[in-house]
Amino acid sequence: MHFTGGSFQPRGETACVKIVQVTRLDVRYAETDQMGVVHHSHFPVYFEVGRSEFFQQYLCHYAELERQGLRAPVIEVSYRLHSGARYGDVLVLQTRPEWLRGLRIEMSYRMTRNQSEGELIATGFTRHALLGPDLRPARKERLGGLYQRVQEVFGDGESG
Amino acid sequence: MHFTGGSFQPRGETACVKIVQVTRLDVRYAETDQMGVVHHSHFPVYFEVGRSEFFQQYLCHYAELERQGLRAPVIEVSYRLHSGARYGDVLVLQTRPEWLRGLRIEMSYRMTRNQSEGELIATGFTRHALLGPDLRPARKERLGGLYQRVQEVFGDGESG
Amino acid sequence: MHFTGGSFQPRGETACVKIVQVTRLDVRYAETDQMGVVHHSHFPVYFEVGRSEFFQQYLCHYAELERQGLRAPVIEVSYRLHSGARYGDVLVLQTRPEWLRGLRIEMSYRMTRNQSEGELIATGFTRHALLGPDLRPARKERLGGLYQRVQEVFGDGESG
Amino acid sequence: MHFTGGSFQPRGETACVKIVQVTRLDVRYAETDQMGVVHHSHFPVYFEVGRSEFFQQYLCHYAELERQGLRAPVIEVSYRLHSGARYGDVLVLQTRPEWLRGLRIEMSYRMTRNQSEGELIATGFTRHALLGPDLRPARKERLGGLYQRVQEVFGDGESG
Repeated sequence: MHFTGGSFQPRGETACVKIVQVTRLDVRYAETDQMGVVHHSHFPVYFEVGRSEFFQQYLCHYAELERQGLRAPVIEVSYRLHSGARYGDVLVLQTRPEWLRGLRIEMSYRMTRNQSEGELIATGFTRHALLGPDLRPARKERLGGLYQRVQEVFGDGESG
Repeated sequence: MHFTGGSFQPRGETACVKIVQVTRLDVRYAETDQMGVVHHSHFPVYFEVGRSEFFQQYLCHYAELERQGLRAPVIEVSYRLHSGARYGDVLVLQTRPEWLRGLRIEMSYRMTRNQSEGELIATGFTRHALLGPDLRPARKERLGGLYQRVQEVFGDGESG
Repeated sequence: MHFTGGSFQPRGETACVKIVQVTRLDVRYAETDQMGVVHHSHFPVYFEVGRSEFFQQYLCHYAELERQGLRAPVIEVSYRLHSGARYGDVLVLQTRPEWLRGLRIEMSYRMTRNQSEGELIATGFTRHALLGPDLRPARKERLGGLYQRVQEVFGDGESG
Repeated sequence: MHFTGGSFQPRGETACVKIVQVTRLDVRYAETDQMGVVHHSHFPVYFEVGRSEFFQQYLCHYAELERQGLRAPVIEVSYRLHSGARYGDVLVLQTRPEWLRGLRIEMSYRMTRNQSEGELIATGFTRHALLGPDLRPARKERLGGLYQRVQEVFGDGESG
């Protein structure tokens, strides 16, 4: 698991810009367990919130992607917990695109306490398949400009 | 909130039989919160598990109902918590049909610890609308034998 | 269920001010179900988020209350669903204190779509017991200034 | 990720027995999302249910372990989703101990549809730290017979 980030060529520019979407989350009481920390099953949900904001910021709202017939279901999840998250904490989540390979993408996550340079709470990644409206692999040619945009955001797979 | 149960006329019989579906649930660690008890938001899920077993036992699996175009979404939920449920407890849930009024039904729930006569944990009810495949109110005539069966199970509304 | 709000006497003022805490929530994909709307079990969690913000704004962070030995566990939940909440919606939640009676409080909730005057999604209330560190009923005299503050925020029970 | 299982020396026997705990789970409606399948965040909860049954069967109920001052919080989770789980499915979960290394253990999971030889739904593993009552690393000597029992169940780490 690494967090070097993917290279991103903003439209019309040549400099590499590392994309990172920063999301702030308040721990919900309902997310704690009897050990007094956030139950580990909530981290995939947190990651999804960060991913959703990332999509909205750099592609379009995932609800709109679904309406257009594209889906990116999770096919793999992996994360490590470094320190317990507690009710009252503000969780700062950094979400990054890692790579695009054919019709698969990887995104990575880094969560810290209260600020981006705060204590490390969790790191992880998710992998997704790009599917069409029939939940079968999407056809690149049908995705049209959208696939090109995904390529711009995720890089061309060299960075993976 | 009352739990007298609805009257049920089994096919071809005249005696009243009170239906109750009993479901046993192990508390999941993920369901506890930092007070050391099950978080209150899980009770509607427990009730749904009981309701699902009730449907399967007395009507048909709710997944099959959905395939047939019938939906019974929750439109009201109400419950009281009498004692905390803890990880390690077996929750014994009694689910009862209360009434059918037009295209609305009410079901009630009573949860105790470890056995049906055990310490009272929660009581509650849910109300549901019977909807067609377009999520609009179902038409009784289109439900056919299914509506009749619902009438048999829930009674004719007099008991509510 | 009514939402007239409790009367609130701000410190040193005589005019009645109706307290309402407004919280904006993005629907999380994980909160939807196969009907395509937010599963009803998430509304108690949304209400809790609003309540948590209310406590932080008008009393103190609930995490701090717990550290001081006060707990306000949910003893009753009741809500109605008026329209489905969808992924992509912004949920606007209004949280109000309703009444304080001895060591019990009631709070009410009103959720609309996208704006406070938007389509009605849900209404509900929760009731809570005020407990001490041993999870037994708190003693008013030990709560000291905190109980007085709760009285100011919730009114004296006449409004319930 | 491999599922060869750890070697297990039953008390007083010499033959290797591969431990596997089989758990059957009904998909809860609340666990589905708007894609019509179980949301990926529920798999760590399913794994936990299998793990809890495994502990109860081969060590003792995890609630009892906690009372004795031992905790085994999740420090890493990894899983792949091979096929969607649907409401109406019975999920058959195989839970296996993989290894014990000092104060860390790994468990693996394999979930299929309706039967152990059914369609593959998910595979994964979790890693845990063995902690004492103060949530610091447990001291083997204080765990006493319990650590020995863990060694018997998980093997001596050679199999990892």
